[in-house]
Amino acid sequence: MFKGAFSSIAQYSAPLRRFGASSVARIVVLAVGLSAMTVYTVPDLQRSAGIWLTACLWCCLAYFTVECAVRARGAFRTGETKKYALSPSGIVDLAGVFAVPIALVCGVMPNTAWLLASLWILKLAQNSPGFEQLGRVFVLEAKALASVLALFLIVLFLTSAAMYLIERDLQPASFGTLPAALWWAVVTLTTTGYGDEVPQSHLGHMLGAFVMICGIATFGLWTGILATGFAAESRRRNFIQTWDLVSKVPFFQSLDPSAITEITHMLRRLEVPERTAVIRRGKVGDCMYFIAAGEVQVDIKPTPIRLGAGAFFGEIALLLTDSVRTANVTTTMPSSLLILDLADFRTLTAHHPDLKRAIDLEGQRRMAENTGVRDLQRLGSAAPS
Amino acid sequence: MFKGAFSSIAQYSAPLRRFGASSVARIVVLAVGLSAMTVYTVPDLQRSAGIWLTACLWCCLAYFTVECAVRARGAFRTGETKKYALSPSGIVDLAGVFAVPIALVCGVMPNTAWLLASLWILKLAQNSPGFEQLGRVFVLEAKALASVLALFLIVLFLTSAAMYLIERDLQPASFGTLPAALWWAVVTLTTTGYGDEVPQSHLGHMLGAFVMICGIATFGLWTGILATGFAAESRRRNFIQTWDLVSKVPFFQSLDPSAITEITHMLRRLEVPERTAVIRRGKVGDCMYFIAAGEVQVDIKPTPIRLGAGAFFGEIALLLTDSVRTANVTTTMPSSLLILDLADFRTLTAHHPDLKRAIDLEGQRRMAENTGVRDLQRLGSAAPS
Amino acid sequence: MFKGAFSSIAQYSAPLRRFGASSVARIVVLAVGLSAMTVYTVPDLQRSAGIWLTACLWCCLAYFTVECAVRARGAFRTGETKKYALSPSGIVDLAGVFAVPIALVCGVMPNTAWLLASLWILKLAQNSPGFEQLGRVFVLEAKALASVLALFLIVLFLTSAAMYLIERDLQPASFGTLPAALWWAVVTLTTTGYGDEVPQSHLGHMLGAFVMICGIATFGLWTGILATGFAAESRRRNFIQTWDLVSKVPFFQSLDPSAITEITHMLRRLEVPERTAVIRRGKVGDCMYFIAAGEVQVDIKPTPIRLGAGAFFGEIALLLTDSVRTANVTTTMPSSLLILDLADFRTLTAHHPDLKRAIDLEGQRRMAENTGVRDLQRLGSAAPS
Amino acid sequence: MFKGAFSSIAQYSAPLRRFGASSVARIVVLAVGLSAMTVYTVPDLQRSAGIWLTACLWCCLAYFTVECAVRARGAFRTGETKKYALSPSGIVDLAGVFAVPIALVCGVMPNTAWLLASLWILKLAQNSPGFEQLGRVFVLEAKALASVLALFLIVLFLTSAAMYLIERDLQPASFGTLPAALWWAVVTLTTTGYGDEVPQSHLGHMLGAFVMICGIATFGLWTGILATGFAAESRRRNFIQTWDLVSKVPFFQSLDPSAITEITHMLRRLEVPERTAVIRRGKVGDCMYFIAAGEVQVDIKPTPIRLGAGAFFGEIALLLTDSVRTANVTTTMPSSLLILDLADFRTLTAHHPDLKRAIDLEGQRRMAENTGVRDLQRLGSAAPS
Repeated sequence: MFKGAFSSIAQYSAPLRRFGASSVARIVVLAVGLSAMTVYTVPDLQRSAGIWLTACLWCCLAYFTVECAVRARGAFRTGETKKYALSPSGIVDLAGVFAVPIALVCGVMPNTAWLLASLWILKLAQNSPGFEQLGRVFVLEAKALASVLALFLIVLFLTSAAMYLIERDLQPASFGTLPAALWWAVVTLTTTGYGDEVPQSHLGHMLGAFVMICGIATFGLWTGILATGFAAESRRRNFIQTWDLVSKVPFFQSLDPSAITEITHMLRRLEVPERTAVIRRGKVGDCMYFIAAGEVQVDIKPTPIRLGAGAFFGEIALLLTDSVRTANVTTTMPSSLLILDLADFRTLTAHHPDLKRAIDLEGQRRMAENTGVRDLQRLGSAAPS
Repeated sequence: MFKGAFSSIAQYSAPLRRFGASSVARIVVLAVGLSAMTVYTVPDLQRSAGIWLTACLWCCLAYFTVECAVRARGAFRTGETKKYALSPSGIVDLAGVFAVPIALVCGVMPNTAWLLASLWILKLAQNSPGFEQLGRVFVLEAKALASVLALFLIVLFLTSAAMYLIERDLQPASFGTLPAALWWAVVTLTTTGYGDEVPQSHLGHMLGAFVMICGIATFGLWTGILATGFAAESRRRNFIQTWDLVSKVPFFQSLDPSAITEITHMLRRLEVPERTAVIRRGKVGDCMYFIAAGEVQVDIKPTPIRLGAGAFFGEIALLLTDSVRTANVTTTMPSSLLILDLADFRTLTAHHPDLKRAIDLEGQRRMAENTGVRDLQRLGSAAPS
Repeated sequence: MFKGAFSSIAQYSAPLRRFGASSVARIVVLAVGLSAMTVYTVPDLQRSAGIWLTACLWCCLAYFTVECAVRARGAFRTGETKKYALSPSGIVDLAGVFAVPIALVCGVMPNTAWLLASLWILKLAQNSPGFEQLGRVFVLEAKALASVLALFLIVLFLTSAAMYLIERDLQPASFGTLPAALWWAVVTLTTTGYGDEVPQSHLGHMLGAFVMICGIATFGLWTGILATGFAAESRRRNFIQTWDLVSKVPFFQSLDPSAITEITHMLRRLEVPERTAVIRRGKVGDCMYFIAAGEVQVDIKPTPIRLGAGAFFGEIALLLTDSVRTANVTTTMPSSLLILDLADFRTLTAHHPDLKRAIDLEGQRRMAENTGVRDLQRLGSAAPS
Repeated sequence: MFKGAFSSIAQYSAPLRRFGASSVARIVVLAVGLSAMTVYTVPDLQRSAGIWLTACLWCCLAYFTVECAVRARGAFRTGETKKYALSPSGIVDLAGVFAVPIALVCGVMPNTAWLLASLWILKLAQNSPGFEQLGRVFVLEAKALASVLALFLIVLFLTSAAMYLIERDLQPASFGTLPAALWWAVVTLTTTGYGDEVPQSHLGHMLGAFVMICGIATFGLWTGILATGFAAESRRRNFIQTWDLVSKVPFFQSLDPSAITEITHMLRRLEVPERTAVIRRGKVGDCMYFIAAGEVQVDIKPTPIRLGAGAFFGEIALLLTDSVRTANVTTTMPSSLLILDLADFRTLTAHHPDLKRAIDLEGQRRMAENTGVRDLQRLGSAAPS
């Protein structure tokens, strides 16, 4: 589950590599810093290990300062200093660096000042494509979500006013003011239910039951809207990103435009680091791969062969009846692959018989070569010429 | 997230503009009024700032009275006074104006009478298209939702009767009557869980676990139904609204009916206020725009050009390989735009080569003109003649 | 929201009509009976109003006995007595009638015996088509839901064992046994959170946070599966029910099979009671109607006309540019209508120009007649001959 | 709901059959073992029934040891001992067998050592295809889910730091340290709401309300993502599994590839045990069946006939107007059936008239034979030759 987050950070930290700081180090520093900050607020531990914790915090701050400096220098070189300083990423960097020192200089007590280190958590959101996607869903469905929020507020105000009327004489401590009744309504409508304020009269119980059921209904609407919006956005985003990669595979260039559009809707992208197994011999295969960028090595005996951008592999298992992978395939460099699932492979080849013929020919040639073991290097140019 | 709500209110308040009251003012008055009403119920603050709060509340009431009067006059002029008074919007207006004064006249204590000001929150729902949409979803899925509600009631009654039997002797205070057991069941089935009534026997724990799991299942069904209904309604509504705008774009008139239907399913609507940037130079572009109503200004040097209803823009980035926007585009008046995403642009032009040819021609002509800088005003009639 | 439930009960109670008992009466009796049973468990009210409550309960029981007898007689006449007695509906009827008397005869205290009246709530589920639909969703997605349940059980057992180890010495009263820890885990994993058992150590807090996040994830999976299943089932059910009605509309018979299939996917069914307004003059129209069964009256001057099964109406608003309804349309008997939304109307007529031509012709003829006011009765045979 | 889990276990335990251990026995042993382990931690019961509980636990352990030994022997014979020992299934088996004895040998107290028996619950996940499917959904949507998790962490840290600042002086016991505030934030953000720590200041209430609403929003996003991912995965998986079965039905072999792809998207699989009724005479039928593997018996008089792999049945109800099943159909051995729903049957036959003709012919021939009662055995070769 963390894989996505890690990879997105990895991708973004590319310019930091020169400095020797990998993305894993960044996550570790972030975790250490936030843990130290958290522990620092416990009086006992602050007394016994305060010096070490402070040292740890200063080290993390130093790390983020260096990181920020590297980026600022990069921005300065391209003349975009101001743009960097005003970008969300730049603001997060600068806040992470300057918030704590400024607070300390202003005379804030250390254990309060270091709380500002919690701003470091915002680094999780920096340049993450996932956040953009979530943001787009909220924008797309803004009208519907605003209606649900308005519904939420209407139920909140009306029921808390009613509950205040019902319970204020019975429980002056809990429901004696409207703000207290509003607090109860929020806690109930979100189905959180602390239990610090609970209606006691029968009328109050009935109103409470109504609020809880409204809460579930509101929640259901909210989720339904987000699910609808996310499905649409997901489809849209996938197409755009896949389109870029499809244009790099010569094999697809020979197809007519409507076939390209169709295949783009079917392919999924996969970014693979170097030296990673993509296919394992003997496993059941249910997809084939196109290489948009990078290189893979197919471990067939006696000499493994290498396939570069534009080639495809994994189609043999789809053509065989037992669907078993016949060789290990490993990346030799970070690669962008396009995955075509079995279901889509069948649909596509049914619609475009010439595409199936091309893949079949290539597959048969390879199987023949696997047996004859010669001219293996030719497979590197597997795309139909 | 509030943007949608704001814009819908803005749209609806158009007739109020003459009176000088903007929609932002309306929201502010609503927020101030409700806050004052809320604070007014806190005894300490009522004593210390009661006069100011009352004054504030009377001001808000005056504002809503004026608003209601303006609308009533408008309705009177068109002879629809009765229709207005009986419409949901009219009832909300009238209740907001008369509820509090009538209560005060009837001798209700002020701090109770002003609670009726919570009816003002209903103004959030006035004329909001989002509420209609939510209402339609509930109507469409009425049968399924009623089944879930019936399931909810069945589980509620049977489990509370069982729990009453199990725990009534053990905890007479909490489970001594069936209404008390029903309250527990509602609190548990909605996963609110106040904790004021908790089963203590082993049998009670098992039954409680069953109720909680039923609660999650019911909830999941409810959400699933609403998500399905919302997706269908969203698709339907989008088509109808887009169809109206598509009929205003001459560019589409030359297409055959099935292509118009296809493109209508793909376009998204966007209402843009005046002087708003639609496209920023240098950003990566993933969509093109058609102008259904209004006007935009394209900032190309030396003289910016203006495009009116029926024209399109933003297609150059889709035709270029690097997809970078070549100019800023800003609205000069409130405009209705139709957005065609990259994914749909590709699909559409694959299916309709003549459409692609027309856009290509126009794009090439514009790029040539950008270089030659002459006859720029001609772009205003960008729709294919 | 209750409309669906009401109508389904109405439909099912048709044979009871002879007895003079309408479905509304049935719901009222059910509500009164369950309320009386609930109130009867409150000691104070039992003392003060016990006789009236008992009388009320006996009346409800008598009503349900009569209902059961009517049904049993109906089943006896068709020789299906045994089938009725073993059907879910029959079991619910019999349990509702005999449970309480048998308990009383066996010497159970009245206030306990009457608790069995809570079985009456099961009558809500009798013959409801919605329940069948929900059941099918559960069957369809059984494998996936079972996996989520297994996941739930795995998390439950492992985390409660771990929490028992962590907290048993710290809080022997709350976490001193594994059953107690299991109770905590259920309460937490379903995000109910009573607060009667709360971990106190730091390790316990971390494990608790993990359980809560697992709870949300499980819940999300569960909802996602049900939403997917419900969407599929909803589509399937809609097609089957619509198909039956489509076969009754002669207008569609002239279409080729693939067009019939296409239109069946687009139509929605609507059951309308008699004397109900379907279309109101002056409203904006976004759909047209086909009559599968029943009859409607179109209020045009000077003489209203009637349209029977097989005719269509409401298409004029779709053909006009302002989309305004030109006449009131009311049912004269309970009718089954098929609704074709504007979006689907456009799509359909784009794909089938001859269908559009037929509707256009009919529409023009009607508009001409509306003006000329003659031969109005001919509209009754609006289906293309 | 458990049916899916049971059948998947049944399928997987096939090699155990020789040993006489059915899958039901396995579930019973698991339930008994876990119950005994749970009860064993209650001091009273441990004292009074400790010996019996221990005996019971040892028996369950013996059962799982034998099971593990059978599998290990099977793996040893095929030379895959190491592969088995390192597979998730093998690790679960070995942990279940060795964890408790090793703990006991190491001197851990029995009532603590037996807690390790909770690892047995992992056997629910062994070889279950549902778990793979859920896992794939998580991998597919990893990026989006990671973003939601990051959003969750960001809100968690920032709000708990703020709440710590607001409430630390007011409630030092509850909010005196940042870890305590973090615990509050987790409990609130997941809408669990224990109520052990509740903000008391007005500012704290406002922040708390914000956290709860964020919790619901996060939850909605999470559910929406999982629903989207699950729908996609479900479609994909269904296609692959159905494709395998379709290739075994000769009736489909005569179709062209695009029709096969289309029909594969429509069919649903159904695994039926032997001697199970598939169709009951007199019920309304809304689907037809193809036999991919196994055999069914059609109970028509005077001699029931048998249909083997490749035949189809149930199509008569779809061709008749009243849709009533004309005969009972029962499996004679475990069979794999493919279900074609009425909706899809109509769509398919509309697109492929020759397919409809073939089914019609077969149906008419059978109905004629049902009347004439001769050559019934020929139906066994119902697939079109």
